[in-house]
Amino acid sequence: MPHPAAVLTVSDLGSRGERVDTAGPAVVALLEAAGFAVVATGILPDEPDRIAEWLRDRAAEDVALAITAGGTGLSPRDRTPEATAGVLDYRVEGMEQAMRAAGLASTPMAMLSRGLVGVRGRTLIVNLPGSERGARENLTTVLPVLDHACSSLRDASREVRATHDRLAE
Amino acid sequence: MPHPAAVLTVSDLGSRGERVDTAGPAVVALLEAAGFAVVATGILPDEPDRIAEWLRDRAAEDVALAITAGGTGLSPRDRTPEATAGVLDYRVEGMEQAMRAAGLASTPMAMLSRGLVGVRGRTLIVNLPGSERGARENLTTVLPVLDHACSSLRDASREVRATHDRLAE
Amino acid sequence: MPHPAAVLTVSDLGSRGERVDTAGPAVVALLEAAGFAVVATGILPDEPDRIAEWLRDRAAEDVALAITAGGTGLSPRDRTPEATAGVLDYRVEGMEQAMRAAGLASTPMAMLSRGLVGVRGRTLIVNLPGSERGARENLTTVLPVLDHACSSLRDASREVRATHDRLAE
Repeated sequence: MPHPAAVLTVSDLGSRGERVDTAGPAVVALLEAAGFAVVATGILPDEPDRIAEWLRDRAAEDVALAITAGGTGLSPRDRTPEATAGVLDYRVEGMEQAMRAAGLASTPMAMLSRGLVGVRGRTLIVNLPGSERGARENLTTVLPVLDHACSSLRDASREVRATHDRLAE
Repeated sequence: MPHPAAVLTVSDLGSRGERVDTAGPAVVALLEAAGFAVVATGILPDEPDRIAEWLRDRAAEDVALAITAGGTGLSPRDRTPEATAGVLDYRVEGMEQAMRAAGLASTPMAMLSRGLVGVRGRTLIVNLPGSERGARENLTTVLPVLDHACSSLRDASREVRATHDRLAE
Repeated sequence: MPHPAAVLTVSDLGSRGERVDTAGPAVVALLEAAGFAVVATGILPDEPDRIAEWLRDRAAEDVALAITAGGTGLSPRDRTPEATAGVLDYRVEGMEQAMRAAGLASTPMAMLSRGLVGVRGRTLIVNLPGSERGARENLTTVLPVLDHACSSLRDASREVRATHDRLAE
């Protein structure tokens, strides 16, 4: 069974219909091609509270993967990493590092991307940049490990639950 | 108009005049060649409280860029990263990562450098190592994005302020 | 005089004797070949409290280097980084970064390793992955700086203590 995934575009202009969002649809297409079932998409302005709420809701629905695109730079409205940090149980810094290292091969500007990767409950959360090119590039970098990461969070949970149920009998 | 910048050398020996500081002047020269206006320089011993105060003062003066050189290693007196962490609003870990990755190409010792990069208010703060070679190498790595980073922090602030002023009318 | 080191394997199966631990012995052999004196080894299940206690005890004994192998992944039982974070005075993120960058050259799965490196008192603590291959590869990456790192933490402490003693006279 494919892992359920959700994709959120974060953009003030996009959320007001003043810019066409191409990053979000590109992320959805890449995920579906990789075997994920995209069960929810959304677009929100750069409001940390609403971004955090969206992430908490997706984790509560137990999606395996929640991806955001946008709001990772240095402008004062770029607060996706802060919104994400507030909902994570822990970070997976190696995935952040790998995305930035790959980005640096294209442009030094990649070092300004502050996107986080981490886990809330059994949901892996990944922040991507808002440009379609940056989002594609970053997602492509982590794509080879996404299925394994989601399965680790899930299969192991099943195992833990099985152990728990056995002990509780 | 060039972005105003400030440079602090952190060194017990240097601050007592027992070692000639070549890292600080090298940083100043590189910044001026890149179009920054160096408006303040200083030298302090490895005292976290004084380093933090210097950084807070420069941010209060709204310099676009505050750079430190020294105190990033593993000796107990090396506390520049801790002093810096205490004044940052948030980190820009990709710039830290890029500096260390570039350093590793020269020497494995680069992995011991604990320098931080981050933002306080509208001021970008960058910790460099204390050796002239390390400081030059690290600064050269981030130099291509410094102007854009400072402009993002500033232009966007202007935009936010313009919006704020308009709403406040 | 060689620096004293300690090695802990973290593995539920290994601690119950249901899996032969090859990572721990491989780490011991590499450390001894590099001139460290391995003064303690152990094996514990993936219980964060016991891992943290083991690390605190080794730091209290003033070993120069305490290495763990295992528990750095994304399974719910993988909590070595959390146990380690709770006992560190500060992290040395460049060593973490260097290990993961080297690992990525072998396999993209390296980006899922969450191992920390940091300092408690005068003890350098390094988390390695639990697979023998991963542990060897990560340790080999940081091995060239381990002696210098331990000496920095120690020699400088002696210097600070000497200064302290002189001032206290």
